[in-house]
Amino acid sequence: MRLLRYGEAGKEKPGLLDAGDTLRDLSGHVADIDGGSISPDGLKKLAAIDPASLPAVSGNPRLGCPVGNIGKIICVGLNYSDHAAETGMQVPAEPIIFMKATTAINGPNDTVVIPRHSKKTDWEVELGIVIGKKAQYVEEKDALDYVAGYVLVNDISEREFQIERHGQWVKGKSADTFAPIGPWLVTRDEVADPQNLKMWLDVNGKRCQDGSTTTMVYGVKHLVSYISQFMTLMPGDVIPTGTPPGVGAGMKPPMFLKPGDVMKLGIEGLGEQHQDVVGYKG
Amino acid sequence: MRLLRYGEAGKEKPGLLDAGDTLRDLSGHVADIDGGSISPDGLKKLAAIDPASLPAVSGNPRLGCPVGNIGKIICVGLNYSDHAAETGMQVPAEPIIFMKATTAINGPNDTVVIPRHSKKTDWEVELGIVIGKKAQYVEEKDALDYVAGYVLVNDISEREFQIERHGQWVKGKSADTFAPIGPWLVTRDEVADPQNLKMWLDVNGKRCQDGSTTTMVYGVKHLVSYISQFMTLMPGDVIPTGTPPGVGAGMKPPMFLKPGDVMKLGIEGLGEQHQDVVGYKG
Repeated sequence: MRLLRYGEAGKEKPGLLDAGDTLRDLSGHVADIDGGSISPDGLKKLAAIDPASLPAVSGNPRLGCPVGNIGKIICVGLNYSDHAAETGMQVPAEPIIFMKATTAINGPNDTVVIPRHSKKTDWEVELGIVIGKKAQYVEEKDALDYVAGYVLVNDISEREFQIERHGQWVKGKSADTFAPIGPWLVTRDEVADPQNLKMWLDVNGKRCQDGSTTTMVYGVKHLVSYISQFMTLMPGDVIPTGTPPGVGAGMKPPMFLKPGDVMKLGIEGLGEQHQDVVGYKG
Repeated sequence: MRLLRYGEAGKEKPGLLDAGDTLRDLSGHVADIDGGSISPDGLKKLAAIDPASLPAVSGNPRLGCPVGNIGKIICVGLNYSDHAAETGMQVPAEPIIFMKATTAINGPNDTVVIPRHSKKTDWEVELGIVIGKKAQYVEEKDALDYVAGYVLVNDISEREFQIERHGQWVKGKSADTFAPIGPWLVTRDEVADPQNLKMWLDVNGKRCQDGSTTTMVYGVKHLVSYISQFMTLMPGDVIPTGTPPGVGAGMKPPMFLKPGDVMKLGIEGLGEQHQDVVGYKG
């Protein structure tokens, strides 16, 4: 299934995209797409619904983040060896994890705002894991049982705030609009191999990132297992798994976002995002 | 006011402690003590209630974290110059901030569980700021307007996970039970000077931390203003502001928690916590 949330920000309704790409309303069946409705039982109930029986949604509504009420966003750093190289950092001996404030969450096609005093706002196309079941001390062989599905994430990052402002990356990862997620949550059963998905990101029509999850250092199973040794993962938590090469900070000379820029990005099977970039107006 | 939440974990009811230290039930007035009820308007409504008109709660119920539905916990690192010295790190030129998973939240007197494979579980008594109003790009002179009140926090930390496991402190800060908060939220009007509060922590009856918020490097106003430059703070968000000297990692030789240990800690005017320490049983 391709599950989504549509409508005005903060008032999104649950929906799905059917096999013919028609958006259909799920609000007769669930209140929201969230930790409750994407549990294994919740997904079974949704899968039993005939999409043709759901009301088609007319027009072209805004899409929100496809998961509501996300408890935490746990990001993975330097998880593509060639991206680590372009940033001048080593591939870590264990996954680097950091958090992104949930207040940064944005719809997939919403405007991205460059924060006040930012000079180095950058992009990162990433495969996001969505947790479907409470996970604590999970073994790698069981890890996929805890995954509801996958989403496309743009892990937007302010490099000066992240690296040059004295400690801990969360500072450069958490501005409002820095976490466009979606368009859809694609359930795990429809992603044959999460380690073999093409991914790309264009800025102003120029291809900047052109990679694949085949070159991830630590794969989905390992990450879910690993993170669950340090904290309990809850249904609805999202894990952006790192980005392939081609971020602005790695270019020679470095290139960062400016008002008027347009980002387009996608992952094979997980849909596309489109974001207009604007400056902060206080 | 001293606001609190009491009852079984996950089913806490709102309450307050009156001037005579009687616990009184607020559930006739608000559904929870949370971002909604601790907004400036929410607090005005609560302050207008005569505590004597509220039902007294009998017995000695468990206390939960005094704020429900916390969106994020943003911690401040190395914010006491003498604590920085004992850990062998420099006082940073700007506040270090990092996040703690909200799944770590615990009641003030709940059992603390040493995580699996932990050898270096440590304590940190901290003053916690509770946000009462959405804060974005707040100026230091206005910062207290965004503060609902203060809480006592034990920012429990696994030093190996935090420091020796390849990047980003969140890894050592986020295990379940690592964030005892409470007993009460003391509203801002009742804390004359948050920069002049004695604080202490005992392990097995021995005084380990004995400090005061007078020696904080970056004070409450600066922290609220500073953090709000990097992310939007929401009502109910909690900011533990760092710890004075006396953590286990700083002792010679270092000393860490083991099953059977007992922690007691307090901050002047904000009450006390008491935690039994147990090992993880998987």
